[in-house]
Amino acid sequence: MAGILREIKIATQQRIAMVDVTADLKKAVAESGIKEGILLAGVLHTTAGMTVNENADPDVVRDLLMHLEKMVPEKGGYRHAEGNSDAHIKATLVGNSVTIPVSKGALVLGTWQGIYFCEFDGPRQRKIMVRVMG
Amino acid sequence: MAGILREIKIATQQRIAMVDVTADLKKAVAESGIKEGILLAGVLHTTAGMTVNENADPDVVRDLLMHLEKMVPEKGGYRHAEGNSDAHIKATLVGNSVTIPVSKGALVLGTWQGIYFCEFDGPRQRKIMVRVMG
Amino acid sequence: MAGILREIKIATQQRIAMVDVTADLKKAVAESGIKEGILLAGVLHTTAGMTVNENADPDVVRDLLMHLEKMVPEKGGYRHAEGNSDAHIKATLVGNSVTIPVSKGALVLGTWQGIYFCEFDGPRQRKIMVRVMG
Repeated sequence: MAGILREIKIATQQRIAMVDVTADLKKAVAESGIKEGILLAGVLHTTAGMTVNENADPDVVRDLLMHLEKMVPEKGGYRHAEGNSDAHIKATLVGNSVTIPVSKGALVLGTWQGIYFCEFDGPRQRKIMVRVMG
Repeated sequence: MAGILREIKIATQQRIAMVDVTADLKKAVAESGIKEGILLAGVLHTTAGMTVNENADPDVVRDLLMHLEKMVPEKGGYRHAEGNSDAHIKATLVGNSVTIPVSKGALVLGTWQGIYFCEFDGPRQRKIMVRVMG
Repeated sequence: MAGILREIKIATQQRIAMVDVTADLKKAVAESGIKEGILLAGVLHTTAGMTVNENADPDVVRDLLMHLEKMVPEKGGYRHAEGNSDAHIKATLVGNSVTIPVSKGALVLGTWQGIYFCEFDGPRQRKIMVRVMG
Protein backbone atom coordinates (compact mmCIF):
# COMPACT_ATOMS: atom_id res chain seq x y z
CA MET A 1 0.00 0.00 0.00
CA ALA A 2 1.40 3.36 -1.04
CA GLY A 3 0.51 6.41 1.06
CA ILE A 4 -0.04 9.66 -0.80
CA LEU A 5 3.05 11.34 -2.24
CA ARG A 6 4.01 14.32 -0.09
CA GLU A 7 6.18 17.31 -0.94
CA ILE A 8 8.35 19.15 1.58
CA LYS A 9 9.55 22.62 0.60
CA ILE A 10 12.86 23.98 1.85
CA ALA A 11 14.35 27.44 1.37
CA THR A 12 18.10 27.16 1.88
CA GLN A 13 20.07 30.20 3.00
CA GLN A 14 23.66 29.45 2.00
CA ARG A 15 25.61 27.83 -0.84
CA ILE A 16 26.23 24.67 1.21
CA ALA A 17 24.13 23.57 4.15
CA MET A 18 22.57 20.57 5.81
CA VAL A 19 18.97 21.01 6.94
CA ASP A 20 17.55 18.57 9.50
CA VAL A 21 14.18 17.39 8.11
CA THR A 22 13.60 14.55 10.58
CA ALA A 23 10.57 16.24 12.17
CA ASP A 24 8.93 16.81 8.75
CA LEU A 25 9.46 13.17 7.82
CA LYS A 26 8.11 11.93 11.16
CA LYS A 27 5.01 14.01 10.51
CA ALA A 28 4.64 12.51 7.01
CA VAL A 29 4.76 9.01 8.51
CA ALA A 30 2.17 9.86 11.16
CA GLU A 31 -0.18 11.42 8.59
CA SER A 32 0.15 8.44 6.22
CA GLY A 33 -1.48 6.17 8.79
CA ILE A 34 0.95 3.42 7.74
CA LYS A 35 2.19 1.33 10.66
CA GLU A 36 4.69 -1.13 9.14
CA GLY A 37 6.73 -0.38 6.02
CA ILE A 38 9.34 2.02 4.68
CA LEU A 39 9.78 5.73 3.98
CA LEU A 40 11.52 7.05 0.86
CA ALA A 41 12.61 10.70 0.86
CA GLY A 42 14.31 11.96 -2.30
CA VAL A 43 15.22 15.33 -3.76
CA LEU A 44 13.95 16.65 -7.11
CA HIS A 45 17.33 18.29 -7.83
CA THR A 46 20.80 17.41 -9.15
CA THR A 47 22.86 19.72 -6.91
CA ALA A 48 21.41 18.54 -3.59
CA GLY A 49 21.13 15.24 -1.74
CA MET A 50 19.84 13.38 1.31
CA THR A 51 21.80 11.69 4.08
CA VAL A 52 21.50 10.31 7.60
CA ASN A 53 24.02 11.56 10.14
CA GLU A 54 24.43 12.79 13.71
CA ASN A 55 21.84 15.24 15.02
CA ALA A 56 23.58 16.14 18.32
CA ASP A 57 26.84 18.05 17.81
CA PRO A 58 26.55 20.59 14.94
CA ASP A 59 30.31 20.23 14.39
CA VAL A 60 29.64 16.87 12.72
CA VAL A 61 27.66 18.58 9.97
CA ARG A 62 30.27 21.34 9.73
CA ASP A 63 33.13 18.80 9.42
CA LEU A 64 31.19 16.82 6.80
CA LEU A 65 30.50 19.87 4.63
CA MET A 66 34.07 21.16 5.02
CA HIS A 67 35.59 17.82 4.10
CA LEU A 68 33.30 17.41 1.07
CA GLU A 69 34.55 20.85 -0.03
CA LYS A 70 38.14 19.65 0.38
CA MET A 71 37.45 16.48 -1.64
CA VAL A 72 35.44 18.31 -4.31
CA PRO A 73 36.57 21.96 -4.46
CA GLU A 74 34.18 24.55 -5.92
CA LYS A 75 36.90 25.55 -8.39
CA GLY A 76 38.44 22.42 -9.82
CA GLY A 77 39.10 22.73 -13.56
CA TYR A 78 35.59 21.62 -14.47
CA ARG A 79 34.08 22.17 -17.90
CA HIS A 80 30.35 22.57 -17.09
CA ALA A 81 29.55 26.19 -17.95
CA GLU A 82 27.24 26.86 -15.02
CA GLY A 83 30.21 26.65 -12.65
CA ASN A 84 28.52 24.33 -10.15
CA SER A 85 30.06 20.99 -11.12
CA ASP A 86 31.26 20.51 -7.55
CA ALA A 87 27.61 20.54 -6.42
CA HIS A 88 26.63 17.88 -8.97
CA ILE A 89 29.55 15.68 -7.88
CA LYS A 90 28.75 16.07 -4.17
CA ALA A 91 25.11 15.18 -4.91
CA THR A 92 26.13 11.87 -6.45
CA LEU A 93 28.60 11.09 -3.63
CA VAL A 94 25.99 11.73 -0.91
CA GLY A 95 23.08 10.23 -2.84
CA ASN A 96 19.74 11.69 -3.86
CA SER A 97 17.49 9.80 -1.45
CA VAL A 98 17.29 7.92 1.84
CA THR A 99 15.08 4.95 2.72
CA ILE A 100 14.19 4.30 6.37
CA PRO A 101 12.12 1.52 7.96
CA VAL A 102 8.76 2.43 9.51
CA SER A 103 7.48 0.37 12.45
CA LYS A 104 4.63 0.90 14.91
CA GLY A 105 3.69 3.97 12.89
CA ALA A 106 7.09 5.67 13.40
CA LEU A 107 10.46 6.05 11.68
CA VAL A 108 13.01 3.52 12.98
CA LEU A 109 16.07 5.65 13.78
CA GLY A 110 19.03 5.21 16.11
CA THR A 111 19.55 7.55 19.05
CA TRP A 112 21.87 9.92 17.18
CA GLN A 113 20.41 9.63 13.69
CA GLY A 114 18.90 12.67 12.00
CA ILE A 115 17.82 12.88 8.36
CA TYR A 116 19.32 15.78 6.42
CA PHE A 117 18.62 17.61 3.21
CA CYS A 118 22.04 18.53 1.79
CA GLU A 119 22.30 21.78 -0.17
CA PHE A 120 25.35 22.08 -2.40
CA ASP A 121 24.39 25.01 -4.64
CA GLY A 122 22.12 27.34 -2.70
CA PRO A 123 20.55 29.47 -1.64
CA ARG A 124 17.52 28.05 -3.46
CA GLN A 125 13.93 26.90 -3.14
CA ARG A 126 14.07 23.09 -2.93
CA LYS A 127 11.66 20.15 -2.82
CA ILE A 128 11.80 16.71 -1.21
CA MET A 129 9.30 14.07 -2.32
CA VAL A 130 8.21 11.65 0.41
CA ARG A 131 6.63 8.27 -0.14
CA VAL A 132 5.55 5.99 2.72
CA MET A 133 4.83 2.37 1.69
CA GLY A 134 3.07 -0.17 3.91
CA MET B 1 2.08 -5.23 -4.64
CA ALA B 2 5.31 -6.10 -6.45
CA GLY B 3 5.41 -5.77 -10.24
CA ILE B 4 7.41 -8.38 -12.14
CA LEU B 5 11.19 -8.12 -11.89
CA ARG B 6 12.61 -6.68 -15.10
CA GLU B 7 16.13 -6.83 -16.48
CA ILE B 8 17.72 -4.10 -18.58
CA LYS B 9 20.82 -5.05 -20.57
CA ILE B 10 23.53 -2.52 -21.32
CA ALA B 11 26.64 -2.89 -23.46
CA THR B 12 29.13 -0.24 -22.38
CA GLN B 13 31.75 0.97 -24.85
CA GLN B 14 34.48 2.50 -22.66
CA ARG B 15 36.23 1.88 -19.34
CA ILE B 16 34.25 4.62 -17.60
CA ALA B 17 30.93 5.94 -18.80
CA MET B 18 27.53 7.08 -17.63
CA VAL B 19 24.57 5.73 -19.63
CA ASP B 20 21.20 7.52 -19.31
CA VAL B 21 18.61 4.79 -18.67
CA THR B 22 15.71 7.08 -17.76
CA ALA B 23 13.67 6.09 -20.82
CA ASP B 24 14.09 2.37 -20.07
CA LEU B 25 12.97 2.91 -16.48
CA LYS B 26 9.97 5.00 -17.54
CA LYS B 27 8.96 2.15 -19.83
CA ALA B 28 9.30 -0.37 -16.99
CA VAL B 29 6.98 1.75 -14.82
CA ALA B 30 4.42 2.07 -17.62
CA GLU B 31 4.49 -1.68 -18.29
CA SER B 32 4.13 -2.54 -14.59
CA GLY B 33 0.69 -0.93 -14.51
CA ILE B 34 1.52 0.39 -11.02
CA LYS B 35 0.20 3.90 -10.41
CA GLU B 36 1.42 4.81 -6.90
CA GLY B 37 4.60 3.41 -5.35
CA ILE B 38 8.36 3.28 -5.86
CA LEU B 39 10.89 2.05 -8.41
CA LEU B 40 14.13 0.32 -7.42
CA ALA B 41 16.86 0.01 -10.08
CA GLY B 42 20.04 -1.78 -9.03
CA VAL B 43 23.09 -3.23 -10.78
CA LEU B 44 24.14 -6.88 -10.57
CA HIS B 45 27.82 -5.88 -10.54
CA THR B 46 30.51 -4.65 -8.15
CA THR B 47 32.37 -2.32 -10.53
CA ALA B 48 29.35 -0.31 -11.65
CA GLY B 49 26.68 1.80 -9.97
CA MET B 50 23.54 3.88 -10.36
CA THR B 51 23.03 7.59 -9.77
CA VAL B 52 20.68 10.49 -10.48
CA ASN B 53 22.21 13.59 -12.02
CA GLU B 54 21.74 16.26 -14.69
CA ASN B 55 20.53 15.14 -18.10
CA ALA B 56 21.00 18.44 -19.95
CA ASP B 57 24.66 19.45 -20.30
CA PRO B 58 26.91 16.43 -21.04
CA ASP B 59 29.77 18.29 -19.35
CA VAL B 60 28.19 17.47 -15.98
CA VAL B 61 28.69 13.76 -16.58
CA ARG B 62 32.18 14.39 -17.95
CA ASP B 63 33.15 16.47 -14.88
CA LEU B 64 31.71 13.83 -12.54
CA LEU B 65 33.63 10.97 -14.14
CA MET B 66 36.85 13.02 -14.33
CA HIS B 67 36.62 14.07 -10.70
CA LEU B 68 35.89 10.51 -9.52
CA GLU B 69 39.06 9.51 -11.41
CA LYS B 70 40.99 12.23 -9.57
CA MET B 71 39.62 11.08 -6.19
CA VAL B 72 40.13 7.39 -6.95
CA PRO B 73 42.93 6.99 -9.52
CA GLU B 74 43.06 3.82 -11.62
CA LYS B 75 46.60 3.21 -10.39
CA GLY B 76 46.73 3.81 -6.66
CA GLY B 77 48.89 1.26 -4.88
CA TYR B 78 46.02 -1.19 -4.56
CA ARG B 79 46.53 -4.87 -3.73
CA HIS B 80 43.58 -6.52 -5.58
CA ALA B 81 45.18 -8.61 -8.33
CA GLU B 82 42.61 -7.88 -11.03
CA GLY B 83 43.82 -4.27 -11.14
CA ASN B 84 40.34 -2.72 -11.00
CA SER B 85 40.16 -1.69 -7.34
CA ASP B 86 39.39 1.87 -8.36
CA ALA B 87 36.20 0.62 -10.04
CA HIS B 88 35.11 -1.24 -6.88
CA ILE B 89 35.73 1.87 -4.77
CA LYS B 90 33.85 4.17 -7.17
CA ALA B 91 30.93 1.70 -7.17
CA THR B 92 30.60 1.98 -3.40
CA LEU B 93 30.93 5.79 -3.44
CA VAL B 94 28.21 6.20 -6.07
CA GLY B 95 25.99 3.40 -4.76
CA ASN B 96 24.62 0.28 -6.43
CA SER B 97 20.98 1.31 -6.76
CA VAL B 98 18.56 4.21 -6.92
CA THR B 99 14.99 4.37 -5.57
CA ILE B 100 12.54 6.83 -7.12
CA PRO B 101 8.89 7.57 -6.27
CA VAL B 102 6.20 6.55 -8.78
CA SER B 103 2.99 8.59 -8.95
CA LYS B 104 0.11 8.70 -11.46
CA GLY B 105 1.82 5.82 -13.23
CA ALA B 106 5.06 7.72 -13.86
CA LEU B 107 8.49 8.28 -12.30
CA VAL B 108 8.59 11.41 -10.14
CA LEU B 109 11.70 13.28 -11.36
CA GLY B 110 12.78 16.91 -11.28
CA THR B 111 13.21 18.88 -14.52
CA TRP B 112 16.93 18.18 -14.83
CA GLN B 113 17.07 14.71 -13.29
CA GLY B 114 18.19 11.74 -15.37
CA ILE B 115 18.93 8.25 -14.04
CA TYR B 116 22.34 6.91 -14.99
CA PHE B 117 24.04 3.53 -15.10
CA CYS B 118 27.67 4.20 -14.12
CA GLU B 119 30.34 2.00 -15.73
CA PHE B 120 33.69 1.99 -13.97
CA ASP B 121 35.39 -1.07 -15.53
CA GLY B 122 34.10 -1.46 -19.07
CA PRO B 123 33.59 -2.13 -21.80
CA ARG B 124 31.29 -4.94 -20.63
CA GLN B 125 27.84 -6.47 -20.92
CA ARG B 126 25.89 -5.25 -17.87
CA LYS B 127 22.51 -5.82 -16.23
CA ILE B 128 20.18 -3.60 -14.19
CA MET B 129 17.36 -5.24 -12.23
CA VAL B 130 14.19 -3.15 -11.94
CA ARG B 131 11.46 -3.61 -9.38
CA VAL B 132 8.33 -1.46 -9.25
CA MET B 133 6.31 -1.73 -6.00
CA GLY B 134 2.79 -0.41 -5.58
CA MET C 1 2.84 -6.22 2.58
CA ALA C 2 5.56 -5.54 5.12
CA GLY C 3 7.29 -8.49 6.76
CA ILE C 4 8.21 -8.11 10.41
CA LEU C 5 11.10 -5.77 11.21
CA ARG C 6 14.20 -7.79 12.04
CA GLU C 7 17.34 -6.76 13.88
CA ILE C 8 20.81 -8.15 13.17
CA LYS C 9 23.45 -7.64 15.86
CA ILE C 10 27.11 -7.28 14.96
CA ALA C 11 30.12 -7.03 17.25
CA THR C 12 32.94 -5.41 15.30
CA GLN C 13 36.54 -6.10 16.30
CA GLN C 14 38.52 -3.22 14.79
CA ARG C 15 38.20 0.52 14.17
CA ILE C 16 37.44 0.00 10.48
CA ALA C 17 36.09 -3.21 9.00
CA MET C 18 33.64 -4.60 6.49
CA VAL C 19 31.50 -7.50 7.71
CA ASP C 20 29.76 -9.69 5.10
CA VAL C 21 26.12 -10.00 6.23
CA THR C 22 24.75 -11.58 3.05
CA ALA C 23 23.92 -14.87 4.78
CA ASP C 24 21.99 -13.10 7.57
CA LEU C 25 20.00 -11.11 5.03
CA LYS C 26 19.24 -14.22 2.94
CA LYS C 27 17.91 -15.84 6.11
CA ALA C 28 15.72 -12.80 6.85
CA VAL C 29 14.22 -13.04 3.36
CA ALA C 30 13.53 -16.76 3.72
CA GLU C 31 11.92 -16.28 7.14
CA SER C 32 9.73 -13.42 5.89
CA GLY C 33 7.92 -15.76 3.53
CA ILE C 34 7.85 -12.94 0.95
CA LYS C 35 8.43 -14.16 -2.59
CA GLU C 36 8.43 -10.98 -4.72
CA GLY C 37 9.49 -7.57 -3.41
CA ILE C 38 12.46 -5.73 -1.95
CA LEU C 39 14.74 -5.90 1.09
CA LEU C 40 15.92 -2.79 2.96
CA ALA C 41 18.87 -3.17 5.35
CA GLY C 42 19.97 -0.04 7.22
CA VAL C 43 22.20 0.76 10.16
CA LEU C 44 21.02 2.48 13.35
CA HIS C 45 24.31 4.40 13.61
CA THR C 46 26.03 7.49 12.21
CA THR C 47 29.58 6.14 12.06
CA ALA C 48 28.80 2.99 10.08
CA GLY C 49 27.20 2.18 6.73
CA MET C 50 26.06 -0.48 4.30
CA THR C 51 27.35 -1.29 0.82
CA VAL C 52 27.37 -3.95 -1.88
CA ASN C 53 30.76 -5.05 -3.18
CA GLU C 54 32.84 -8.07 -4.17
CA ASN C 55 32.69 -11.12 -1.91
CA ALA C 56 35.51 -13.13 -3.53
CA ASP C 57 38.94 -11.52 -3.11
CA PRO C 58 39.37 -9.99 0.39
CA ASP C 59 41.83 -7.50 -1.13
CA VAL C 60 38.86 -5.62 -2.61
CA VAL C 61 37.57 -4.83 0.87
CA ARG C 62 41.08 -3.99 2.05
CA ASP C 63 41.66 -1.61 -0.87
CA LEU C 64 38.27 0.03 -0.32
CA LEU C 65 38.87 0.67 3.38
CA MET C 66 42.45 1.86 2.76
CA HIS C 67 41.37 4.26 0.03
CA LEU C 68 38.51 5.65 2.13
CA GLU C 69 41.14 6.31 4.82
CA LYS C 70 43.26 8.15 2.25
CA MET C 71 40.29 10.24 1.10
CA VAL C 72 39.06 10.90 4.65
CA PRO C 73 42.01 10.66 7.09
CA GLU C 74 41.28 9.96 10.74
CA LYS C 75 43.17 13.13 11.67
CA GLY C 76 42.09 15.89 9.35
CA GLY C 77 41.67 19.19 11.18
CA TYR C 78 38.11 18.41 12.19
CA ARG C 79 36.28 20.30 14.93
CA HIS C 80 33.92 17.58 16.33
CA ALA C 81 35.16 16.92 19.86
CA GLU C 82 34.66 13.16 19.85
CA GLY C 83 37.48 12.81 17.31
CA ASN C 84 35.59 10.52 14.95
CA SER C 85 34.54 12.96 12.25
CA ASP C 86 36.21 10.80 9.61
CA ALA C 87 33.81 7.97 10.54
CA HIS C 88 30.77 10.25 10.16
CA ILE C 89 32.02 11.45 6.76
CA LYS C 90 32.73 7.91 5.53
CA ALA C 91 29.24 6.84 6.67
CA THR C 92 27.62 9.49 4.46
CA LEU C 93 29.86 8.66 1.48
CA VAL C 94 29.07 4.94 1.67
CA GLY C 95 25.42 5.40 2.64
CA ASN C 96 23.45 4.11 5.60
CA SER C 97 21.35 1.47 3.84
CA VAL C 98 21.08 -0.83 0.84
CA THR C 99 17.94 -1.91 -1.01
CA ILE C 100 17.96 -5.17 -2.97
CA PRO C 101 15.25 -6.85 -5.08
CA VAL C 102 13.70 -10.08 -3.81
CA SER C 103 12.40 -12.61 -6.33
CA LYS C 104 11.29 -16.25 -6.02
CA GLY C 105 11.77 -15.89 -2.27
CA ALA C 106 15.48 -14.96 -2.57
CA LEU C 107 17.72 -11.90 -2.78
CA VAL C 108 18.58 -11.00 -6.38
CA LEU C 109 22.37 -10.61 -6.36
CA GLY C 110 25.05 -10.85 -9.03
CA THR C 111 27.68 -13.59 -8.91
CA TRP C 112 30.26 -11.49 -7.10
CA GLN C 113 27.95 -9.34 -4.98
CA GLY C 114 28.09 -9.50 -1.20
CA ILE C 115 26.31 -7.15 1.21
CA TYR C 116 28.56 -5.53 3.78
CA PHE C 117 28.14 -3.76 7.09
CA CYS C 118 30.85 -1.07 7.14
CA GLU C 119 32.37 -0.18 10.51
CA PHE C 120 34.21 3.14 10.63
CA ASP C 121 34.52 3.71 14.40
CA GLY C 122 34.77 0.35 16.09
CA PRO C 123 35.12 -1.87 17.85
CA ARG C 124 31.46 -1.60 18.88
CA GLN C 125 28.16 -3.43 19.26
CA ARG C 126 26.10 -2.55 16.19
CA LYS C 127 22.60 -3.11 14.82
CA ILE C 128 21.17 -3.47 11.31
CA MET C 129 17.40 -3.18 10.83
CA VAL C 130 15.97 -5.35 8.06
CA ARG C 131 12.64 -4.83 6.35
CA VAL C 132 11.33 -7.13 3.60
CA MET C 133 8.38 -5.72 1.61
CA GLY C 134 6.23 -7.79 -0.74
